[in-house]
Amino acid sequence: MRIDILTLFPEMFEGVLQHSILKRAQELGAFQPNLVNFREFTTNKHKKVDDYPYGGGAGMVLAPQPIFDAIEHVTEGSAKPRVILMCPQGEPYNQKKAEELAKEEHLIFICGHYEGYDERIRENIVTDEISIGDYVLTGGEIGAMAVMDSVVRLLPDVLGNASSAPEDSFSTGLLEHPHYTRPADFRGMQVPEVLTSGDHGKIEAWRREQSLYRTATRRPDLLSDAELSDKERDQVKKWQKD
Amino acid sequence: MRIDILTLFPEMFEGVLQHSILKRAQELGAFQPNLVNFREFTTNKHKKVDDYPYGGGAGMVLAPQPIFDAIEHVTEGSAKPRVILMCPQGEPYNQKKAEELAKEEHLIFICGHYEGYDERIRENIVTDEISIGDYVLTGGEIGAMAVMDSVVRLLPDVLGNASSAPEDSFSTGLLEHPHYTRPADFRGMQVPEVLTSGDHGKIEAWRREQSLYRTATRRPDLLSDAELSDKERDQVKKWQKD
Repeated sequence: MRIDILTLFPEMFEGVLQHSILKRAQELGAFQPNLVNFREFTTNKHKKVDDYPYGGGAGMVLAPQPIFDAIEHVTEGSAKPRVILMCPQGEPYNQKKAEELAKEEHLIFICGHYEGYDERIRENIVTDEISIGDYVLTGGEIGAMAVMDSVVRLLPDVLGNASSAPEDSFSTGLLEHPHYTRPADFRGMQVPEVLTSGDHGKIEAWRREQSLYRTATRRPDLLSDAELSDKERDQVKKWQKD
Repeated sequence: MRIDILTLFPEMFEGVLQHSILKRAQELGAFQPNLVNFREFTTNKHKKVDDYPYGGGAGMVLAPQPIFDAIEHVTEGSAKPRVILMCPQGEPYNQKKAEELAKEEHLIFICGHYEGYDERIRENIVTDEISIGDYVLTGGEIGAMAVMDSVVRLLPDVLGNASSAPEDSFSTGLLEHPHYTRPADFRGMQVPEVLTSGDHGKIEAWRREQSLYRTATRRPDLLSDAELSDKERDQVKKWQKD
């Protein structure tokens, strides 16, 4: 997978690209990042990428020209790139979208900074608008890192044995049950007895119940998509009543 | 504001801390980050931070000892730190939470990586569990960057004149209206006439309608908290019917 990132702050990505899973994925040849400072594509002599908004108002707006030209440069010869605009107006990002993007060969992220985007960018060259959540960030860079991390880790062979239980969260539709590791007694705080019982049936039942309880109390919105037995649905109703 | 970040990958933060708003905030003295590799706090000779889960299962679990000791180290002398665990089971992060955290003097982020956390960490030293969205990330680091960026930009004087219109998104409860800047004609794509009319009443009305339409079609879930006139509510119903 090739990922181009259009940003005015390419250096922001260094730490994230050079460590952990994104580094590993590059070493494996699973993904190739390409940082593009779209300021280099401006045709005006002051290398300005933004300008005042038509109709007045606070803030600046990213002009169409540098972004159109940068996109044309990185999409040359690419069959079917996904051009992703990081913005608060985008569709809320989720694991299903990560799985969808992981099937692509070429992603392009457009990261604005402070400013809004000229609407003609949105209407003419963008295929996806993504928001990573309902909070205001200074730019699209951190959002692009989040999307990139969540997508690249799904590529074949990237996770290897590092794959671990916590990621079940969004596949079973329930939040994870609690985890414990050694020591069994840490400063007087004990591991629940069931986990050291060796009774795997009981352990599974405890974990399922904990997972269900946590989801019912913290994120009841997730329950509508989760697969529950009739008995479990009744139990959830009881908890919600109390 | 002081922010301690407990992570096994402190170098991941370099790019983000040394650019844009987080750099500016440090220069202004508004915020001071402190990266803490909690591996340095392990008391075992192999510097192991994780271990197998009690009760079996895939993946490793972060042990309580290094994190408890690191937290005690960074909270020494601190009046009332907020200890934030980044995890998929946490409360969904939003702008209201960012505003709440921006009033604090000392935040501490705990970033796991691959693994789950021993539940005793959660129950005994954590004050807030935060999830930045319903997607799986390799670690808590990118999430901590997102929270940090969204909080630090709200600190007094940090944004300065860089403050801009797009951040209205979550304050009016509606998504932003479209923006346009020069040129008025870009490759045959025109700016809407109303924006060059000079009629400010009309411009405001157009922007409000666009904002409303965009929210109604993209994020109707936001409308319940937004302040709309009766006429606007009727208009929304009409759009939703079509």
